[in-house]
Amino acid sequence: MTLDLAGDPVALTAALVDFPSVSGTEGPLADEVFRALEGLKRYEVTRDGDTVVARTNLGRPHRVVLAGHLDTVPIAGNVPSRREGDLLYGCGTTDMKSGDAVLLHLAATVEEPAHDLTLVLYDNEEVEASKNGLGRVGRNHPDWLAADFAVLLEPTDGTVEGGCQGTMRAKVTTHGKRAHSARSWHGVNAIHAAAAILDTLNAYEARQVDIDGCVYREGLNAVAVSGGVAGNVIPDRCEVTVNFRFAPDRSEAQAEAHVREVFAGFDVEITDSAPGALPGLSAPAAANFVAELGAPVQAKLGWTDVARFASLGIPAVNFGPGDPNLAHQAGEYVDTRKITEAVQALRRYLAAD
Amino acid sequence: MTLDLAGDPVALTAALVDFPSVSGTEGPLADEVFRALEGLKRYEVTRDGDTVVARTNLGRPHRVVLAGHLDTVPIAGNVPSRREGDLLYGCGTTDMKSGDAVLLHLAATVEEPAHDLTLVLYDNEEVEASKNGLGRVGRNHPDWLAADFAVLLEPTDGTVEGGCQGTMRAKVTTHGKRAHSARSWHGVNAIHAAAAILDTLNAYEARQVDIDGCVYREGLNAVAVSGGVAGNVIPDRCEVTVNFRFAPDRSEAQAEAHVREVFAGFDVEITDSAPGALPGLSAPAAANFVAELGAPVQAKLGWTDVARFASLGIPAVNFGPGDPNLAHQAGEYVDTRKITEAVQALRRYLAAD
Repeated sequence: MTLDLAGDPVALTAALVDFPSVSGTEGPLADEVFRALEGLKRYEVTRDGDTVVARTNLGRPHRVVLAGHLDTVPIAGNVPSRREGDLLYGCGTTDMKSGDAVLLHLAATVEEPAHDLTLVLYDNEEVEASKNGLGRVGRNHPDWLAADFAVLLEPTDGTVEGGCQGTMRAKVTTHGKRAHSARSWHGVNAIHAAAAILDTLNAYEARQVDIDGCVYREGLNAVAVSGGVAGNVIPDRCEVTVNFRFAPDRSEAQAEAHVREVFAGFDVEITDSAPGALPGLSAPAAANFVAELGAPVQAKLGWTDVARFASLGIPAVNFGPGDPNLAHQAGEYVDTRKITEAVQALRRYLAAD
Repeated sequence: MTLDLAGDPVALTAALVDFPSVSGTEGPLADEVFRALEGLKRYEVTRDGDTVVARTNLGRPHRVVLAGHLDTVPIAGNVPSRREGDLLYGCGTTDMKSGDAVLLHLAATVEEPAHDLTLVLYDNEEVEASKNGLGRVGRNHPDWLAADFAVLLEPTDGTVEGGCQGTMRAKVTTHGKRAHSARSWHGVNAIHAAAAILDTLNAYEARQVDIDGCVYREGLNAVAVSGGVAGNVIPDRCEVTVNFRFAPDRSEAQAEAHVREVFAGFDVEITDSAPGALPGLSAPAAANFVAELGAPVQAKLGWTDVARFASLGIPAVNFGPGDPNLAHQAGEYVDTRKITEAVQALRRYLAAD
């Protein structure tokens, strides 16, 4: 097969969906994408594993990254794609082969872009972070990603999602003293002691923070609790795992200090964390993007790969045609009108000034 | 070997310890016990599996059971027995071959007992209740156990422990609504909701109840807690397992009603329970026992096989030479002076009136 990048972007979406690329098996699709971009002549195309990177070198004042992952979650009887009226059904229709199609279609059809462009089509976004192709390229070839602004074409239903919140998990542990439950007063019940942790969580008032017009809403929640030795033993240990989602005006260190302050007096262990990313919408390349698109801007509350660009000092947003609520579902579909609209909106930005 | 029942009860204890009988392997020891009791002539000796039952038929006004289990927990490098001064070390020295030796020695040496006697040496006390030899005989041959009073020679360090508390476990569950933890306000956190369960447990005031001079001390405790779906999901379910230890003036049904009242409004499921046993020390045969022994009487807080006799309508107590704190330990030992004292105390009772 040959990918027809310049034709109908809806047909291109269907062609990409019909080319399975579950995480770890992106190789053949990456080959096709590499070949198609090379065929356009105006890009310098390179590759790291199954991540394809294509760059223009037009000497424009700003460079913009357009990025999308090639992989999908496992297929659930929903390939090949199926069209019903305006809707296109199939694995990856929303997350995110429609975004990839918009990206590739613009790459082929914007002949005189206002910015130099870097296209990144990467592998292994749907699996553990250590395998993520964007992260790997950032480590192996940070120069390939150098840019003033990045747009990830993840599903946002046509809105612009700026930055992302950080996430941190901590284990908050109570300690007691074991005893036979028939003589419980000889022990100290660590599960009973965990009431104070849960009371703290119930009383916690989460912040809402406005940054560059994006409202971030923090949250501190128990996501796991475990304790108990045996059915006749007063337990000497109870662990509550809490997840703190924090706005990007806090660094990881500040987030940790906050969690430790909230649970002062308890045994607190930070088990994992990932920093947030400021929306950076006041940077010129980003402000221009928002102005040209005229799309609503909102905070991204979950953690996404925009944080990888932020860690490289590049402001980044998500903007894509898919509906994020349909991602990873067997009944996944994309409204094809959103594909056309996304192409039009991004074309205004890429071909402007 | 032949067991010398009439000789030194300390030597008899050592002989029983040196004859391994870990739960499930009591057969050879039960054979020896059967043969030794038959040799005494004045008992009608019978058997169910590895449980030996021997009964006098002297037409006395009351019948008293003396019972002990033949099995031990697994040997931990502590067989054969070893004597150091007044202490005899080895697996089962305290739990409960010293008690068995007292029982068998009295069987052989009290020639004119004041009460008809039923001796029960049973298997599989140290393993799951369904295998318990006393329970099995109670189901297969309840008439073998018919009596006015029962003494179990379990380790009590020479005190009389009356009745036993009941035990009940219940699962108290909270329900919530799942959501991504980045948008926690779309969910309802079931772990946070469990704060109310733990607050209830912390505020609970346990009863103390005096029955026949035995003070029972109840307790209501969490023994396990679990909840959590994934590190990024607001959990929709949290289970707290509570263990209620209740005085024997409550039936199981009353105990259940109490637990349901304490946790009114929560989803409560009773997962297992065992009834308590009233000390029954006001019954003539039991009152007589306490008076003759002159030993201190206290409530048994844990659950023991006296409850099996109680379920047959027979008041029962624990009274034995071993120290219960040493049971099931590799360094298990019995103070041999306690063996002699127990023989003397029980002889006063069995040979009295």
